[in-house]
Amino acid sequence: MRAVTTTAPGLSTLDGVTVGRSSISWVGGTTGDLVYRGFDIRALVPGVPYESIVHLLLEGDPPPDDPPREVVAALEAARPLPAEIAAAADAVPAEVPPLDALRTLLSLLGDGSYPYPPTREQGYRLIARLPVLLARHVRRAAGRPPVDPLPGLSHAANYLRMLRGDPAPPARVRALEAYLDLLADHGMNASTFALRVAISTETDLVSAATAALGTLKGPLHGGAPSRVSAMLDAIAEPAAAEAWIRARLARREVLYGFGHRAYKTEDPRAVVLHALARDVADPRRLALAEEVERTALRLLRQAHPTARLYANVEYYGAVLLEGVGLPPELFTPTFAVARTAGWTAHALEQAGANRLIRPEVEYVGPPSGRAWPRPRAPA
Amino acid sequence: MRAVTTTAPGLSTLDGVTVGRSSISWVGGTTGDLVYRGFDIRALVPGVPYESIVHLLLEGDPPPDDPPREVVAALEAARPLPAEIAAAADAVPAEVPPLDALRTLLSLLGDGSYPYPPTREQGYRLIARLPVLLARHVRRAAGRPPVDPLPGLSHAANYLRMLRGDPAPPARVRALEAYLDLLADHGMNASTFALRVAISTETDLVSAATAALGTLKGPLHGGAPSRVSAMLDAIAEPAAAEAWIRARLARREVLYGFGHRAYKTEDPRAVVLHALARDVADPRRLALAEEVERTALRLLRQAHPTARLYANVEYYGAVLLEGVGLPPELFTPTFAVARTAGWTAHALEQAGANRLIRPEVEYVGPPSGRAWPRPRAPA
Repeated sequence: MRAVTTTAPGLSTLDGVTVGRSSISWVGGTTGDLVYRGFDIRALVPGVPYESIVHLLLEGDPPPDDPPREVVAALEAARPLPAEIAAAADAVPAEVPPLDALRTLLSLLGDGSYPYPPTREQGYRLIARLPVLLARHVRRAAGRPPVDPLPGLSHAANYLRMLRGDPAPPARVRALEAYLDLLADHGMNASTFALRVAISTETDLVSAATAALGTLKGPLHGGAPSRVSAMLDAIAEPAAAEAWIRARLARREVLYGFGHRAYKTEDPRAVVLHALARDVADPRRLALAEEVERTALRLLRQAHPTARLYANVEYYGAVLLEGVGLPPELFTPTFAVARTAGWTAHALEQAGANRLIRPEVEYVGPPSGRAWPRPRAPA
Repeated sequence: MRAVTTTAPGLSTLDGVTVGRSSISWVGGTTGDLVYRGFDIRALVPGVPYESIVHLLLEGDPPPDDPPREVVAALEAARPLPAEIAAAADAVPAEVPPLDALRTLLSLLGDGSYPYPPTREQGYRLIARLPVLLARHVRRAAGRPPVDPLPGLSHAANYLRMLRGDPAPPARVRALEAYLDLLADHGMNASTFALRVAISTETDLVSAATAALGTLKGPLHGGAPSRVSAMLDAIAEPAAAEAWIRARLARREVLYGFGHRAYKTEDPRAVVLHALARDVADPRRLALAEEVERTALRLLRQAHPTARLYANVEYYGAVLLEGVGLPPELFTPTFAVARTAGWTAHALEQAGANRLIRPEVEYVGPPSGRAWPRPRAPA
């Protein structure tokens, strides 16, 4: 047998292993940067339409116009659901939580019409339909009829309108669009990696995106922002922050919204989201969040002097999405809506130079040669 | 920034990287071995009940009895579907191919009732219900009413009965059970790795198993065996094998059923499946498969003198499952039914000593600093 040179259980930078090359986005974990195809996200957000970010991530360059006519037309054409898919979607039990429902609804799109290799056109369908399916489920769970997508509205505006039933105020649409832009891709995170492992077997885009969505759900990845809102609710007012956080740290429980596997400095997305939250958040809620952040960082740094901890994307993402008017159970599904652009870009990149991702593992179980304790049934 | 020591795009042995340790199964790629928890599969198959393999993989040791009363009872209790899930399953369009449908049906089980961390009890539910959901969809697609699971029948016998509507001949049940035993786990393959990436975010077992199923679907992993049947159909008789294979190789097309990323010698599963196929396969079909194997290996070795190519698990798996009476579109779904045991074991192992699997990637896109070509919309 061949000698194994490196064991990398978490496959992180610290393990000294990369899983390959990508030209889609760069996460500068020590410098606090996030770059899409050479564009610093602070040069894009706010103000570049999500449809242009989709074009940038999928094609590698900015589109010829903002928003790009071609992407807008592709998304508009794809939004209306086929009747059979709508009927099947409406049979998912209404009480299934939105993210679990979204995983099933996304899978339902895969009816054989997404053959390998993935294409941009398949990606547009995925990106277009995820918010439609999500909004439909959320409204049905609330006993409300579905709201059809409206041609002429942006992706962000359509999403809010399909959830609410009426057009959202422009400030909320702008804030949501900035959130979608900022969350559209983020290097080789766990959900994107799961998608690339799936695509590497030459499976279809829907199967791979469903794998990604189920991976995003975990609280160590995208599943925690609703817990930020719950924490702010529990603390309720700035003066209560210190006692609440001290008690939690004393019980050795996690403070959600702080720290990130990749960033050892400020998460640039959190910085932008914090600034943008001022346009939509309730001022008292924002003041509470800022006091909780200050207190949490002070106490965390006392408790872990060597750890480099900052508010992460989920912290001010939660504050901003509250201001947009979304309930906490829609935070992670909205993260997924944003990330479909990045997932599609990574699926295209993986399929463009594919190699099966089948890792090696060290077997540490009992050596071969154990004997079954009873006679086997005759063949 | 830290120097990167190893780049491992496929994460295979050749790259000199392992992704960690596991005590579940050992794949001896150069020796032609497959070992579950210290038991050579040839010491288990045929004759050890699938329920005992489930116990072995999940618990680490053989059960106190064959089949184990506890596992049998847990599976029997879990097989009947809740009415809401059955109704939602029946809304999946009947023409969706079985494997795509199974991904959606599996996801549908995740209604919030599989909280992290995964448990054996959750695994039993998953293992029990996958064949029930699959058989229900297949029969509905054929315009037939569902057949309820029958207490007192083994997992293998129940699966065939729910598909057929009547009890299967004992030889077919035995052959299917041997197939389920042999395919129950296989080291750190792509679907299992996708599942462990998902679980590492602390997502739920259903999300992770859905990721695995979508990954298994790819023809470079579990999606190819139906193509073996199609190839045998196309060749039709032994005398036509050489011309057909020569033409295919001349077009540089893949011959499905030969070669494996892990095995550089005979796949032990293929050897056992070949022997067992004699009990159930049509003798003329088996003779055709054997002649095609001999011819393919001779021509492949002429074309690639250094490659170590052998018939793989999909080759004689297809011949055996044909003999069991399953149509080709059910081969990969049946593989998934078998693998739920291994997936559950790996989910339990990952969660037992979890670390987020978030790999590093080398960014090779344009350097940061590009300027968006147009003014951004005012915030």
